[in-house]
Amino acid sequence: MQSFVNVHPKVLREKIRNGTYTGRTSGCCRGYVQANLVILPERYADDFTKFCQRNPKPCPVLEVLDKGDPRPKFLAADASIATDLSSYRIFKKGELVEERGDISDLWQDDFIGYLTGCSYSFEDALMKNNIEIRNITDNHVVAHYITNIPCAPGGIFTGPVVVTMRPIPEDRIDDAYRITGQFPHVHGMPIYHGDPSRIGIDDLNKPAFGYPPTRVLPGEVPVFWACGVTPQMAIAEAKPDIVITHTPAHMFVCDILDVDIEEKLCEQGQQ
Amino acid sequence: MQSFVNVHPKVLREKIRNGTYTGRTSGCCRGYVQANLVILPERYADDFTKFCQRNPKPCPVLEVLDKGDPRPKFLAADASIATDLSSYRIFKKGELVEERGDISDLWQDDFIGYLTGCSYSFEDALMKNNIEIRNITDNHVVAHYITNIPCAPGGIFTGPVVVTMRPIPEDRIDDAYRITGQFPHVHGMPIYHGDPSRIGIDDLNKPAFGYPPTRVLPGEVPVFWACGVTPQMAIAEAKPDIVITHTPAHMFVCDILDVDIEEKLCEQGQQ
Repeated sequence: MQSFVNVHPKVLREKIRNGTYTGRTSGCCRGYVQANLVILPERYADDFTKFCQRNPKPCPVLEVLDKGDPRPKFLAADASIATDLSSYRIFKKGELVEERGDISDLWQDDFIGYLTGCSYSFEDALMKNNIEIRNITDNHVVAHYITNIPCAPGGIFTGPVVVTMRPIPEDRIDDAYRITGQFPHVHGMPIYHGDPSRIGIDDLNKPAFGYPPTRVLPGEVPVFWACGVTPQMAIAEAKPDIVITHTPAHMFVCDILDVDIEEKLCEQGQQ
Repeated sequence: MQSFVNVHPKVLREKIRNGTYTGRTSGCCRGYVQANLVILPERYADDFTKFCQRNPKPCPVLEVLDKGDPRPKFLAADASIATDLSSYRIFKKGELVEERGDISDLWQDDFIGYLTGCSYSFEDALMKNNIEIRNITDNHVVAHYITNIPCAPGGIFTGPVVVTMRPIPEDRIDDAYRITGQFPHVHGMPIYHGDPSRIGIDDLNKPAFGYPPTRVLPGEVPVFWACGVTPQMAIAEAKPDIVITHTPAHMFVCDILDVDIEEKLCEQGQQ
């Protein structure tokens, strides 16, 4: 299998668009920002915008696309959120009805796309600081858990915070907070570390998504970051007529480098 | 009783210092920032700083004082955190051992004071926007509750997020988020609104602090903000040899206006 670790996002997006690549994007295009996707009709956009604003750790907005236009203006050039993800999930009335690799034929004039930060962006920063990312070592999807912590509701959208867990050696926990704290737009610092039962996780061996569970070795502590799958839970509760999201681990790969995203978002905000 | 609603903080602090005023500061010096206080020996400061950084909604740091010096440099002139609060709590090994109005004789050369944002600052902004603050109408201490949401631990400090609750008419909830969201250094937007059981509050009529409970009228929704009492819970769990805090509702009153605090903190950070 060809490795996509070091290809440019444009190359990967093209391979995804023409159906040559259908796999996960975790580990692909190392160093580049990857984003979670939510697409919904305009009538739900006010509520969803509020939901994101009120829950910036799980839902850090990178770009909101223009109504009816699948082309990002900020995160990538010559890209389309209707074709450039390797797997989409289609929800109708809150039910997952289909997973597929292209949604061009479902596109509606009133669709608005939201691209939000994803923790892959900070995994690279952790590894550069010699912190092993176990799910990358083991080539697994990172383990996701549903916590007992509710999001602040935004209109019809409400639900629990979903987290990802990465085991970190006890003497590197402070480093993990410090390093990921430099990326507030990709979930930022952990929301918690230590006893999983304190955030409503009864069994680390039973992740909600991501299997097999990530190995936690002696001397390591489970560390939990807010996760971009969180809106999918809120969508399941709110039951809008139609919503399209990425499939977990199949993200939109952006043209912006992780190391540049905070500065570019800042410039963007000032324009 | 003389009203202190419209006096300058310098006047109130002087009356507190000389023992003329021993009451609550809620409702005093309207428009000025009030701050929560934590004083602890230097050996706990690294951990406590981490705890604050990792939990900025309950613990938004306004000023960390120099070691051994009770005089703020930024928030107030000619003030002392050893004399200028109307009631202090002294904790030894996590136990509340005393409440009193002056701690000068307990001051240690290795004490470091932390002043953090307090929700009184945004109550004024809500009222200016015609949102009634029920605990002010009723002249009660705002109701505080201990949630089931844990803080991110910082060294020895860990514990649940404590919240305050204010009932808000359903059609003003979005306004309440928007208005308080403008004050990230005084707890910012709510962390949740709606069903209290979702954040581990079984009975709104049984607040952990603040009695009687705040009345919730028909058409109103309980709205919850992270609260500066949160570190007191973490201190109770960590059991440091000695910690001194304000007594709830007896805050440090600063010389800075609420409307100026975000800008001044920003300038301060740039120096």
